[in-house]
Amino acid sequence: MDQGLTHIDEDGNVTMVDVGHKPNTLRKAVFGTSVVVNARTMELLMNKALPKGDVLTTAKIAGIQAAKKTWELIPMCHPLLLSFLDVRFEVDTSRNIIHIQAEARTTAGTGVEMEALVAAQCAAMTIYDMCKAVQRDIVITDCKLLHKSGGRSGTYEYSG
Amino acid sequence: MDQGLTHIDEDGNVTMVDVGHKPNTLRKAVFGTSVVVNARTMELLMNKALPKGDVLTTAKIAGIQAAKKTWELIPMCHPLLLSFLDVRFEVDTSRNIIHIQAEARTTAGTGVEMEALVAAQCAAMTIYDMCKAVQRDIVITDCKLLHKSGGRSGTYEYSG
Amino acid sequence: MDQGLTHIDEDGNVTMVDVGHKPNTLRKAVFGTSVVVNARTMELLMNKALPKGDVLTTAKIAGIQAAKKTWELIPMCHPLLLSFLDVRFEVDTSRNIIHIQAEARTTAGTGVEMEALVAAQCAAMTIYDMCKAVQRDIVITDCKLLHKSGGRSGTYEYSG
Amino acid sequence: MDQGLTHIDEDGNVTMVDVGHKPNTLRKAVFGTSVVVNARTMELLMNKALPKGDVLTTAKIAGIQAAKKTWELIPMCHPLLLSFLDVRFEVDTSRNIIHIQAEARTTAGTGVEMEALVAAQCAAMTIYDMCKAVQRDIVITDCKLLHKSGGRSGTYEYSG
Amino acid sequence: MDQGLTHIDEDGNVTMVDVGHKPNTLRKAVFGTSVVVNARTMELLMNKALPKGDVLTTAKIAGIQAAKKTWELIPMCHPLLLSFLDVRFEVDTSRNIIHIQAEARTTAGTGVEMEALVAAQCAAMTIYDMCKAVQRDIVITDCKLLHKSGGRSGTYEYSG
Amino acid sequence: MDQGLTHIDEDGNVTMVDVGHKPNTLRKAVFGTSVVVNARTMELLMNKALPKGDVLTTAKIAGIQAAKKTWELIPMCHPLLLSFLDVRFEVDTSRNIIHIQAEARTTAGTGVEMEALVAAQCAAMTIYDMCKAVQRDIVITDCKLLHKSGGRSGTYEYSG
Repeated sequence: MDQGLTHIDEDGNVTMVDVGHKPNTLRKAVFGTSVVVNARTMELLMNKALPKGDVLTTAKIAGIQAAKKTWELIPMCHPLLLSFLDVRFEVDTSRNIIHIQAEARTTAGTGVEMEALVAAQCAAMTIYDMCKAVQRDIVITDCKLLHKSGGRSGTYEYSG
Repeated sequence: MDQGLTHIDEDGNVTMVDVGHKPNTLRKAVFGTSVVVNARTMELLMNKALPKGDVLTTAKIAGIQAAKKTWELIPMCHPLLLSFLDVRFEVDTSRNIIHIQAEARTTAGTGVEMEALVAAQCAAMTIYDMCKAVQRDIVITDCKLLHKSGGRSGTYEYSG
Repeated sequence: MDQGLTHIDEDGNVTMVDVGHKPNTLRKAVFGTSVVVNARTMELLMNKALPKGDVLTTAKIAGIQAAKKTWELIPMCHPLLLSFLDVRFEVDTSRNIIHIQAEARTTAGTGVEMEALVAAQCAAMTIYDMCKAVQRDIVITDCKLLHKSGGRSGTYEYSG
Repeated sequence: MDQGLTHIDEDGNVTMVDVGHKPNTLRKAVFGTSVVVNARTMELLMNKALPKGDVLTTAKIAGIQAAKKTWELIPMCHPLLLSFLDVRFEVDTSRNIIHIQAEARTTAGTGVEMEALVAAQCAAMTIYDMCKAVQRDIVITDCKLLHKSGGRSGTYEYSG
Repeated sequence: MDQGLTHIDEDGNVTMVDVGHKPNTLRKAVFGTSVVVNARTMELLMNKALPKGDVLTTAKIAGIQAAKKTWELIPMCHPLLLSFLDVRFEVDTSRNIIHIQAEARTTAGTGVEMEALVAAQCAAMTIYDMCKAVQRDIVITDCKLLHKSGGRSGTYEYSG
Repeated sequence: MDQGLTHIDEDGNVTMVDVGHKPNTLRKAVFGTSVVVNARTMELLMNKALPKGDVLTTAKIAGIQAAKKTWELIPMCHPLLLSFLDVRFEVDTSRNIIHIQAEARTTAGTGVEMEALVAAQCAAMTIYDMCKAVQRDIVITDCKLLHKSGGRSGTYEYSG
């Protein structure tokens, strides 16, 4: 090549992993996150009296829909074909916390942690949206991987 | 778990089917739908004189493009890799009806009815859009599954 | 230009209308469509016993989400900022029909018929998806503009 | 209407707010969230030695890109035209926390909290993705509104 | 702030311009690009005999559709409401070049060069796709701004 | 069928190839394109002094993200699961040209030229966007297939 030609590393060395040679195995991941509200918001939620309507069904659908777009939202993620997605809620009325668990599954050469993470956080953000007219200081917190299986790195279980 | 913790079913029990264990087979589906116009619109269509231009090519491309986004439009649909998509038109100039047939194919663990349905209806809606400047009371009607094959449930043929 | 240069019309004269000089006015449109099921599906729907869960909430959210993407689905549509979207259902249990009405509003230089149409048809397609495990011959039918107001062309009301 | 016709509320009363009559004012919102890593991950981050490359630039771009799709991710959100988006990072190397602040601005009839929230959380999720090969128990936590101004409800400042 | 807290500039200082205070004016931009084919491909194109069908209509629709997603494709672009988009072709049969001109218009606080650029290049890439079965060494070349008007920086005309 | 019924070919015969029967093989494609700037822009780029920040990292991420949406941008493309994507830059400071190479890989029944092409051109357009505040007559040029392998048609190497 001619003299002035330089390969420069100003591109941040951002790298997508090549997953072409990894075997397709059944992958599963579960993420948890929590939405902390106040007593009044919790009461409105339990009484289905929030102004934008059915919070948890909307949040569940939003989480499932967002997870299918994980590759679009997270730059270095690969597109993959999710075979199952679920978003589950447990409501702690004594501490005013909505616990969310999102689970993703696929058979692929790469894991599904990011899909479960996106589902959990988009469900949480939707809960925020549906409740923000009645409370501004809602907190989304403690988002972490609970379970991961499939792939070379073996099974991981969160040990709180 | 502590006392106040409740699994509540306010999430509508909305459920995505787990297709991870279904075998990959060749799937095919065909949907039909119809766009009923008036005589003047039909004449403009046949003379390629509608103000927005080539109606059927635009509708065909719109249907194909939309079908690839079925998983994005229909909440409980799985992403899948379509191997073939087609949108065909038959024009009944005596009754002023544009008949649309959309066909989708894939090799997957889940069927492609929804992809064929989305292709047919988005093609129909595009015809509406391209003609609405000259007629407001166009009707999109009689949208139904014509053929489905592949998968455990066997072949289905519409029997008018 | 040189001799061989030709403007060819193989591009179908497909044309996007220039709406840059149209005044911004409040626009509203309502579309109706219908989903015809059988008695068993209707019974399962009314008893909230369909396998994929809460059909109508899912269909409503799907319709609202899809309407926001109308410009992405319908090639010659302009992007616009919807100020309101609603999808409403009326269930005719004697004839086993789910009637859908979708309403869109904006303040813009172009109308919102296509947004209301996309909302109605995507809600209908989602109902199909949520019920197709129990019935294959569901029909989506009689989709038409019910109301349109705002803009130069005046108010339109469907007169059955 | 005929006898069997019922408006049923199985649609969860999910409601999009009509913002058509709200005046356009300058809106601003800032959300904060935090990513808690371990000492080794922090060291790799500070030394730009993580396997997927430049974490924070990638996270910033991901946050900005995702915020523009807030209306697509959060079902009851309106589309709006963001005039400014920023994602900022502060790294606490003593406690191994990456603090993220995301700011959104627009001139509209509705607020931009959700856009700032989506930017912050998608930046956090991208950090997770870029670091997950070296650490599995990263936590995304303490996501809350820090500032909101514009609109009828006045200015809000988080008061720790 | 505590001792270990550092604002680090690993985020590349990537910046979205704040356009909130710029006045809305009518903006227009035109980009040109060229697709150089061989004599056989040109002949097939002129005879409408290419295997994937009507090349230019498909390319025009693809260009228009892609331009509406410019904010999604180009990270630091603002979303804006295009009022007009057009993609035009001129075919130089003596030199086997398809010249593409794409024009975008809006009334906004920011320009539409990127929208015109995306339209031109996506139309060109679609021509490539529709012809690649018959020729592999097609070149897309000489893509440049031809015209820009509106906004503080005044009118620009390409002067070859 | 009744008398007035005609299959008309006004749909441009636009055709998606059926790839359902093609065997899945490892596919690879590399496209090159070039961005020609002036001496001042090149100097600002090399000094990381452009107003919108880190040009090449942003362009690389934009190219990777866009390639994942190739099926959405190019009408007759099939969705596919990319296993690897990369965008590389070489800067010729003597001639003020940024050379871009984009590489895509998958295991599929159809090739990945279009994905590599979209990555290269979207990276180039992002460079244009990041530099356009300081130079208006940037040219994107000489975009061509450099390498293609996998599939029935064998390996292709560009022979300049």
